[in-house]
Amino acid sequence: MTANSKAVVLLSGGMDSCVTAAIAAQTHSLALVHASYGQRTAARERRAFDEIANFYGVSDRDRLVARLDYFAQIGGSALTDSSIAVPQRAAGAARGTVRGTAANGGGEIPVTYVPFRNAHFLSVAVSWAEAIGAGSVWIGAVAEDSSGYPDCRPDYYRAFQELVRVGTRPETRIEIITPVIHLRKSAIICRGIDIGAPLHLTWSCYQNDDQACGSCDSCLLRLSAYTEAGVADPIRYRNGVAPY
Amino acid sequence: MTANSKAVVLLSGGMDSCVTAAIAAQTHSLALVHASYGQRTAARERRAFDEIANFYGVSDRDRLVARLDYFAQIGGSALTDSSIAVPQRAAGAARGTVRGTAANGGGEIPVTYVPFRNAHFLSVAVSWAEAIGAGSVWIGAVAEDSSGYPDCRPDYYRAFQELVRVGTRPETRIEIITPVIHLRKSAIICRGIDIGAPLHLTWSCYQNDDQACGSCDSCLLRLSAYTEAGVADPIRYRNGVAPY
Repeated sequence: MTANSKAVVLLSGGMDSCVTAAIAAQTHSLALVHASYGQRTAARERRAFDEIANFYGVSDRDRLVARLDYFAQIGGSALTDSSIAVPQRAAGAARGTVRGTAANGGGEIPVTYVPFRNAHFLSVAVSWAEAIGAGSVWIGAVAEDSSGYPDCRPDYYRAFQELVRVGTRPETRIEIITPVIHLRKSAIICRGIDIGAPLHLTWSCYQNDDQACGSCDSCLLRLSAYTEAGVADPIRYRNGVAPY
Repeated sequence: MTANSKAVVLLSGGMDSCVTAAIAAQTHSLALVHASYGQRTAARERRAFDEIANFYGVSDRDRLVARLDYFAQIGGSALTDSSIAVPQRAAGAARGTVRGTAANGGGEIPVTYVPFRNAHFLSVAVSWAEAIGAGSVWIGAVAEDSSGYPDCRPDYYRAFQELVRVGTRPETRIEIITPVIHLRKSAIICRGIDIGAPLHLTWSCYQNDDQACGSCDSCLLRLSAYTEAGVADPIRYRNGVAPY
């Protein structure tokens, strides 16, 4: 990859994608993609995207906000289908280790899994990268800590890289880069702090869009990771959940 | 694949996807997906989709129309970017053989190529298939005759099949089926006629949405294929272009 060439980065507004953007920004000019797909906290995530993009001085023409509203029609996930409840835990129940908190500790797919979601996001990013001549697409997928989702594993990105190779113009070279895929959530936080990622602008909560609930799986995972990292979470939580 | 199980079929409203749906309908119950992505003839293609879906008696809940409006922002193709002209040929210039008509006769990628487009369509279809429990996704890609697009080749569908295998729930089995990929356009017409596909309801023109122009690459390809098949094209053309 060429230093200072353009990098297309998928930026949801969460910590993993924020740190991914921070890593990409060290060597590349950023082109940021955000997807709105009818998820419960779409407006709040969009605000996080805008604020992080502003933080990095990314111009409007280097931002792409894609509306994937059809996910609401597809359904099948607690994130996009209001008939499926987002799981809530007792706030202090499982804060010891990061792995202990997630619904998928035993390898199950959580109800927040959106069928084949990352393929949509990556396709938007690759189409844009090919159209603007960017040489790389960056995504903050995390294999171990955060999900149990099938589309967050290294195998998946190897398969997608092959799809990009055969499915774009012969002269197109787009590298799929997953810089945090093998990191624990706590290590992502440390890495982000080290390189000045604006973690205070990120959003993780599945449930609310004012202050984070502190009790959904995503909040618990975030809080546990901050505990493990030994630093205070800079965002605010509802009901006085202590960030550290 | 199980006979009479549900098949998700990508139906653009063109001949290839219409015949693909007709083939799927022989053994499966149809769930039809249509994508609107800011292409010039979106409204006309949608009408073709609706009429073909009506022809097969597909209920509203088994139809999914996905709006991929972000393609207009991505640009890079004459189909979605009004600053790039759709190529026009003299109507009778190259009617002898099908291969002779397309801009890509020499292996070049035509300006109507939309970067990485089919990955978006397939992702919508696979997400829906996983959500509703369909065991197959059908797409009317044609390798040889119709395009020169990189995402119409068998290699591409093998790569996508692998992506589906690694990127969906462990228990999910979705087969990607490309029943016309090795057929010439004229053979697709013959097959369609043989099994009663409603070719009279299909739409191919890149240029207009009332009557087909008869002079864009897509019309020329269609007309040449009908000539080669030795049958009359049942749709109407502007300016009295003879269908046979």
